[in-house]
Amino acid sequence: MAVTGDSELEWAIQTLVKNYDRYSGKGCCCRRRRGISKSDFRKMLSHELNHMLTDTKNRQAADKLICDLDENQDGEINFDEYWNLIGGIASPISCLIRQQEESEKFKK
Amino acid sequence: MAVTGDSELEWAIQTLVKNYDRYSGKGCCCRRRRGISKSDFRKMLSHELNHMLTDTKNRQAADKLICDLDENQDGEINFDEYWNLIGGIASPISCLIRQQEESEKFKK
Repeated sequence: MAVTGDSELEWAIQTLVKNYDRYSGKGCCCRRRRGISKSDFRKMLSHELNHMLTDTKNRQAADKLICDLDENQDGEINFDEYWNLIGGIASPISCLIRQQEESEKFKK
Repeated sequence: MAVTGDSELEWAIQTLVKNYDRYSGKGCCCRRRRGISKSDFRKMLSHELNHMLTDTKNRQAADKLICDLDENQDGEINFDEYWNLIGGIASPISCLIRQQEESEKFKK
């Protein structure tokens, strides 16, 4: 998967970073780049996390995620807030993988 | 890159989760799975983040990272601590990408 000699983990990290960049500060001429706006965040959820987030289409769920995440209440998701969101999605997946492995181990 | 119909972002998240799983709780028979031990963490840094972390080989840098991260001081890196580490590496990269884009914009 990784093309440039980077490891898969490095490639995955760059993918997450580039995704943030793609959805934040688009078409903005002023020097200070914006975070991800609410509407762009909703687009990201439905375009990019469609399988992982079941009720992506649900506007309230997206808004709740944004409100929970927008710690500094500036109406935008900065990189650290974005990273916490992804971590909030990845953590239960990590537990799921473990439970599956545990159940397979005890079947043998 | 994503194979199973998942988006690239979903594929990248799964890569980060599987990487955690690969380095944690290896060969352990008891039910409670361990986090990433210090030695496995060091292996992960040098095998998986060799390009992103310049002084990966530096034992003190790895130990400092582990100490800073091991918030609950149990000598192991759990998933949330692991995720914070990756975020700590990704965040400066995100700023770097922006600076490069800004400088290119002002060259035109």
